[in-house]
Amino acid sequence: MSKLKIVVIGGGSSYTPELIEGLLKRHGELPVGALWLVDIEEGREKLEIIMGLARRMIAKAGLSIDVVATLDRRAALEGADFVCSQFRAGCLEARISDERISLKYGLIGQETNGLGGFANACRTIPIALEIAHEMEQLCPDAWLLNFTNPSGMVTEAILRHSGVKTVGLCNVPVIMQKGVAQLLECENESDFIMQVAGLNHFIFARQILHRGKDRLNDVIAHISAGRDPLVPRNIPPFSWPKHLLQGLGMIPCAYLRYYYMKGDILKQEQAEAGGEGTRGEVVKQLEKELFDLYRDPSLAVKPKALEGRGGQYYSEAACELMNAIYNDKRTIMHVNTRNNGAINGLPDDCAVEVSSLITRSGPLPLNVAPFPEDTLRLLQLMKSFEQLTIEAAITGDRHTAWRALVLNPLITSGEALEQALDEVIEHNRPLMPAFHRRRG
Amino acid sequence: MSKLKIVVIGGGSSYTPELIEGLLKRHGELPVGALWLVDIEEGREKLEIIMGLARRMIAKAGLSIDVVATLDRRAALEGADFVCSQFRAGCLEARISDERISLKYGLIGQETNGLGGFANACRTIPIALEIAHEMEQLCPDAWLLNFTNPSGMVTEAILRHSGVKTVGLCNVPVIMQKGVAQLLECENESDFIMQVAGLNHFIFARQILHRGKDRLNDVIAHISAGRDPLVPRNIPPFSWPKHLLQGLGMIPCAYLRYYYMKGDILKQEQAEAGGEGTRGEVVKQLEKELFDLYRDPSLAVKPKALEGRGGQYYSEAACELMNAIYNDKRTIMHVNTRNNGAINGLPDDCAVEVSSLITRSGPLPLNVAPFPEDTLRLLQLMKSFEQLTIEAAITGDRHTAWRALVLNPLITSGEALEQALDEVIEHNRPLMPAFHRRRG
Amino acid sequence: MSKLKIVVIGGGSSYTPELIEGLLKRHGELPVGALWLVDIEEGREKLEIIMGLARRMIAKAGLSIDVVATLDRRAALEGADFVCSQFRAGCLEARISDERISLKYGLIGQETNGLGGFANACRTIPIALEIAHEMEQLCPDAWLLNFTNPSGMVTEAILRHSGVKTVGLCNVPVIMQKGVAQLLECENESDFIMQVAGLNHFIFARQILHRGKDRLNDVIAHISAGRDPLVPRNIPPFSWPKHLLQGLGMIPCAYLRYYYMKGDILKQEQAEAGGEGTRGEVVKQLEKELFDLYRDPSLAVKPKALEGRGGQYYSEAACELMNAIYNDKRTIMHVNTRNNGAINGLPDDCAVEVSSLITRSGPLPLNVAPFPEDTLRLLQLMKSFEQLTIEAAITGDRHTAWRALVLNPLITSGEALEQALDEVIEHNRPLMPAFHRRRG
Amino acid sequence: MSKLKIVVIGGGSSYTPELIEGLLKRHGELPVGALWLVDIEEGREKLEIIMGLARRMIAKAGLSIDVVATLDRRAALEGADFVCSQFRAGCLEARISDERISLKYGLIGQETNGLGGFANACRTIPIALEIAHEMEQLCPDAWLLNFTNPSGMVTEAILRHSGVKTVGLCNVPVIMQKGVAQLLECENESDFIMQVAGLNHFIFARQILHRGKDRLNDVIAHISAGRDPLVPRNIPPFSWPKHLLQGLGMIPCAYLRYYYMKGDILKQEQAEAGGEGTRGEVVKQLEKELFDLYRDPSLAVKPKALEGRGGQYYSEAACELMNAIYNDKRTIMHVNTRNNGAINGLPDDCAVEVSSLITRSGPLPLNVAPFPEDTLRLLQLMKSFEQLTIEAAITGDRHTAWRALVLNPLITSGEALEQALDEVIEHNRPLMPAFHRRRG
Repeated sequence: MSKLKIVVIGGGSSYTPELIEGLLKRHGELPVGALWLVDIEEGREKLEIIMGLARRMIAKAGLSIDVVATLDRRAALEGADFVCSQFRAGCLEARISDERISLKYGLIGQETNGLGGFANACRTIPIALEIAHEMEQLCPDAWLLNFTNPSGMVTEAILRHSGVKTVGLCNVPVIMQKGVAQLLECENESDFIMQVAGLNHFIFARQILHRGKDRLNDVIAHISAGRDPLVPRNIPPFSWPKHLLQGLGMIPCAYLRYYYMKGDILKQEQAEAGGEGTRGEVVKQLEKELFDLYRDPSLAVKPKALEGRGGQYYSEAACELMNAIYNDKRTIMHVNTRNNGAINGLPDDCAVEVSSLITRSGPLPLNVAPFPEDTLRLLQLMKSFEQLTIEAAITGDRHTAWRALVLNPLITSGEALEQALDEVIEHNRPLMPAFHRRRG
Repeated sequence: MSKLKIVVIGGGSSYTPELIEGLLKRHGELPVGALWLVDIEEGREKLEIIMGLARRMIAKAGLSIDVVATLDRRAALEGADFVCSQFRAGCLEARISDERISLKYGLIGQETNGLGGFANACRTIPIALEIAHEMEQLCPDAWLLNFTNPSGMVTEAILRHSGVKTVGLCNVPVIMQKGVAQLLECENESDFIMQVAGLNHFIFARQILHRGKDRLNDVIAHISAGRDPLVPRNIPPFSWPKHLLQGLGMIPCAYLRYYYMKGDILKQEQAEAGGEGTRGEVVKQLEKELFDLYRDPSLAVKPKALEGRGGQYYSEAACELMNAIYNDKRTIMHVNTRNNGAINGLPDDCAVEVSSLITRSGPLPLNVAPFPEDTLRLLQLMKSFEQLTIEAAITGDRHTAWRALVLNPLITSGEALEQALDEVIEHNRPLMPAFHRRRG
Repeated sequence: MSKLKIVVIGGGSSYTPELIEGLLKRHGELPVGALWLVDIEEGREKLEIIMGLARRMIAKAGLSIDVVATLDRRAALEGADFVCSQFRAGCLEARISDERISLKYGLIGQETNGLGGFANACRTIPIALEIAHEMEQLCPDAWLLNFTNPSGMVTEAILRHSGVKTVGLCNVPVIMQKGVAQLLECENESDFIMQVAGLNHFIFARQILHRGKDRLNDVIAHISAGRDPLVPRNIPPFSWPKHLLQGLGMIPCAYLRYYYMKGDILKQEQAEAGGEGTRGEVVKQLEKELFDLYRDPSLAVKPKALEGRGGQYYSEAACELMNAIYNDKRTIMHVNTRNNGAINGLPDDCAVEVSSLITRSGPLPLNVAPFPEDTLRLLQLMKSFEQLTIEAAITGDRHTAWRALVLNPLITSGEALEQALDEVIEHNRPLMPAFHRRRG
Repeated sequence: MSKLKIVVIGGGSSYTPELIEGLLKRHGELPVGALWLVDIEEGREKLEIIMGLARRMIAKAGLSIDVVATLDRRAALEGADFVCSQFRAGCLEARISDERISLKYGLIGQETNGLGGFANACRTIPIALEIAHEMEQLCPDAWLLNFTNPSGMVTEAILRHSGVKTVGLCNVPVIMQKGVAQLLECENESDFIMQVAGLNHFIFARQILHRGKDRLNDVIAHISAGRDPLVPRNIPPFSWPKHLLQGLGMIPCAYLRYYYMKGDILKQEQAEAGGEGTRGEVVKQLEKELFDLYRDPSLAVKPKALEGRGGQYYSEAACELMNAIYNDKRTIMHVNTRNNGAINGLPDDCAVEVSSLITRSGPLPLNVAPFPEDTLRLLQLMKSFEQLTIEAAITGDRHTAWRALVLNPLITSGEALEQALDEVIEHNRPLMPAFHRRRG
């Protein structure tokens, strides 16, 4: 059995140590021979820091995995078995500018939805497709694990516009699963089956099967009683609107706050922007601190501090997914994959985030019971937003961009939106060439 | 051939003179024997003024139609042929309070959509159903022409919850039709066929057939070039967002400004509320002036000033509809009726506003070409809002009310919404008994 | 106002005199300047006979319309206003061979459904598309009125594969309409509205609106009581199965006998084939007799005998359709046109036969209420059969041909079907070149 | 851990020894305490024979499971954990009469489809619902494993009309799975995932995942080359029509011969009926021979001869299903369960046969990729047939019965059908009381 070649695009990310920890934990099952960390010129310093830490972690574990850090993506992709994509187009600066421009026009600024998600998609999708096309040539049998945000739209763009085998990943359902395990007092997460369905950052838990019963309503009752324990650490604790949980009969993921508590989030973001800084600015400081730790030549484990970042468990999920595919484990994971009929009312060829059996052939989604009509309508609307955004990202057509944005419930239509759109496109000039080609 | 009995619920409305003018104009084809004007105690004075004016108008026309003004609705309905419903539950005071409460919470205040439309529906639907049930007993073969707002939801409530033959009417498509006639320089409105489809106050012109060509794109080009000429007089002139008309390939009705120019409308409403008053307040003043005119015993025609009210052509449309039904005219009119498959993607048994052939058996909708997906998603969302609102209006369930509102693109979710909802229900206590029964 | 050029493809057909009669009857409204009769070499003699008769009929009417008979189709199409297509690929001989081959394998033999309809489509569609493509060049604004059988499939092939404006016509709904008029004792067919919907030769009357009531159930009761009076003269009188009319709540067209009385029809056809001859053979004799009459230089009117042919009213319908389009009459006719959402559950871009408002821009279908599920399933099945047949006709792919046939309820699958399919393709070798190209 | 009570309705069936063998094989995992065999008076002798054999088999295995044989169904159901339903309403005599009546009218006679399946459903469903309602009272938490034929319709009737947890089982997919295992040379059936989907006796293999590849086309190629190796032993070897496998891109189950090779099957059945006897008659003889073996007091194992019966692996599947539920095994099995969106285009609340993850909460269907349109149309048609049949079985309405039958591709409509329907109802008078109540 030959050893695996794993490639990490955006290898200089602060999350990489978690990925390495995950690989080390699974080395008995998942025989990794080489780990290639790829980054771009701007990330060279971080990349080298991570490479150093990775080597120290591997050495400490007494294993031998080659770690290669490179700016040559094609060299890295050649013959790869798994490619993890976790880059950020335009780095944190772009995220911060998305937040600041959004807030300037009275809009929520966030990296995966609203105007910010739109901008992020427009910067990211062209690069993601470049990578996918390189994979078609250089490692056509490899799996692409995408956790580059906005993960749902990026995964859909790749599914639609390339032949690469890809799965999108997110830590949000992982955190929900862990929260439910605590509530149900299950030692083992596989003691119960939580089925989620929806779109990335827009999922709902539909059933929680435990010892032959559906415990969903018990969990809803528990959450209703207090603060939602199923949310990532980077989201401050909050309570859902009193009518929500009783009205829907499903558990929304934490990101659905943006849709069900819009006004409050906007106020909170405005306050943060005038105080400690936007989320992007906070993360930038956090990253700085993390890299100061990583740099320390005596550090040979993933530092505890990394858990403060929002992306916790992302890399853990990636490792488990590679493991499940490689070993045909048939465990249930929550992934972004081709809908193909799983969620009725969404296009067959779109990406959805659904609980799936993970096999050597990839994810087989579990069937999803039809959504209640009102929630289905929101899902369909968001999917239309996503599909128009993907189209705009590729074509650079501003009419399409406007049609995408005007559908999004986080957007306030009107003159300000048109100005905001123009400003986003102008500000991201080098990163959104498609929009500028059309203009010229 | 026996003469017709026509009943007007809300007969004391300032629009009634237009209705009478319309009946007089058609007296050769539509043999009206009696006109019963019904109102409630609070409207007694206006009712009497209208009765007087009506009698003078008829006399001047040299015709003999009995005009009866009454507070006894059952007596009026007995044996009616056509019932025109144009009442306003809670009078203009309720409309004004909807506007003021909405604006207080940062929301658009309007009588047919958003929080205002929701409140209006909750007040109106129980009364509309009472009337429908009386008609089932007292005049089961009569047609109910509903122009009580929110017309789409009221019509749907009656279609779903009674066996009465009903058609909902709106002046918005009438005004669009007249605007198109001017643009195309058609003397006769029937020289072309404009097909509209959507929901009440949420329609789009889908084709404009003239001399064997679809002139839709010509009309779009004309509108894009300047201010939209297809809007009612009570809406100040405005231009559509530059991406809208080119992006959609359909002509939105004027009320779609609320959805495609949200931020601007909110600002405008806030300015008006701090200046000349909300639309309800302006109308209240207008009404006062109109009734001062109507009171004048020398007035025996519909005064020109009525045309300044937003509802212009409503009553004209009602007269033409009665005429088309009575005479099996098979003309094309734009009405609210049971969907029954006309707009794919909306429930069969919901109300839609569609261009229909008007026959003695009522409206036969023309088939509607499938909507582009993004617009369909908005229509479906709005219909879910409408259906949950109707359910809340009948059951008084606040979870359902919240689920309705949170879907509506004009609403900002969050704590403020929950407070606004509570305030609306509390403020309308006597007019929304269902909500208070459940509480008690 | 310039005069119209009307072209008849298959001008040597025995039906042409009805068409001429129809044009003469409407000469006050429909200003025809020239009538071009086109046929192929094999039809030259008949063509000349028809030309002679046509000229005598026009002369007798005291009108001046140029009649041109030609084998040069392109010359005829140049600058045409209306093109009537009524040719039969392979002439009656092909029809007869379809019948004989079908019966040999125990299958119903008929020219528009089952194996015969399949064979007819495979011969006809390639020629119909040739004509359509010539029209795109030579008379792009002309309307193509198709009554070439199988009319539904031919119309769909043209709608899908060309840009020509086309409407398919059939006499079946015309005969139903006339039958209903008699039952309701209406002098004027427009006194009521009969709405039909379905596929060509597979339609159902869904409502019969007369004086404000739906008389459908009355008509059903009448038909149930005896023999169906709504059937063409070429179909011997019969009674529907006792469960059918009461079970369906709709009136099937006469051709639905093939589906609801399969066994009986097969027996009847077998008896005819062993006796007076198949329908094609009977028609061949009838045609001979008709042309003997037409030849008579003293004949200057449509002879009564023509009414014995099955296609009665076909040409009448064609004239009325041209008239309605030309004069924007907005009358309701029953035509084959693009579905576009009219019948829910069938593809948007397929051809359906539906009651439509006829305007200068062509037919606007009336909305069709959703079909009961069991009938919808049959319609969908038949449409899949039609679509696979069209595909097979164009590609010549035998797998596709088999997939089409195996769906058809008139077909018995098994070894015999495979032999029958092979024999049909072999027998029609020169007329189905696509199937033979693939083989070679 | 308390021991399980398993009840077998139709316990006197010749299949019961296989069930007992299956339970014995799994005794380490599935702790059975009591096995109740229930039958009716007519089956008393067989029941006692089976009881004796069961006790000898258990004793030989050195285990202690109480075996109770009873005619008192309620006593048996009380407190049951699993109920296996395998009865045959009207015994083999009814099956034989279905076959003979069908053939008399030129129709295929078979116990699960066509006229025979219809008759069987009408006899069986009322009894199945009686059992389900008893279970609601006496063992509401028990699982009902239905393998009583027609299994799909019986399961759907129970799902729709009772609150019992039920799963329908069939040996057809089990046999396909074993056949594929042989073709792929897999020692272990779980080495690959075969996903099937459709209706009972109307399924298709949609994918065969093995070592990360979909081997479906390889298996298709193998089957195309010769005789289908995936068929039950009671079906004589045959080859599929040459166009079928290449045209569909899916593997049909053996029962689809009835639809894709109708004419051939009818001929074969007619020949058998005139020779060795119908399938029912053959089975009757087989049963006689089996019970002669079972009676032998020295027999203490399932005799080899049982494998000649068509139902092979039925009971094996039942045991494995109980095991998977009891132990939350999450293995993939092919079962009849509520659709709930799994197969798009079929009603949410109907029964479908789909590959599912078996959990302690029952089956979670895997998502099924959308079917090609032509096959979907057949599935939808069959489902409509099934739903109308269930309705007829319960209401005894002959119009509904006719509407069901006329949809079925195995039926030839016409006078003969009406006679056949009348004869079936008359012949089954005591077993179809609903049809006779309505008449009386």
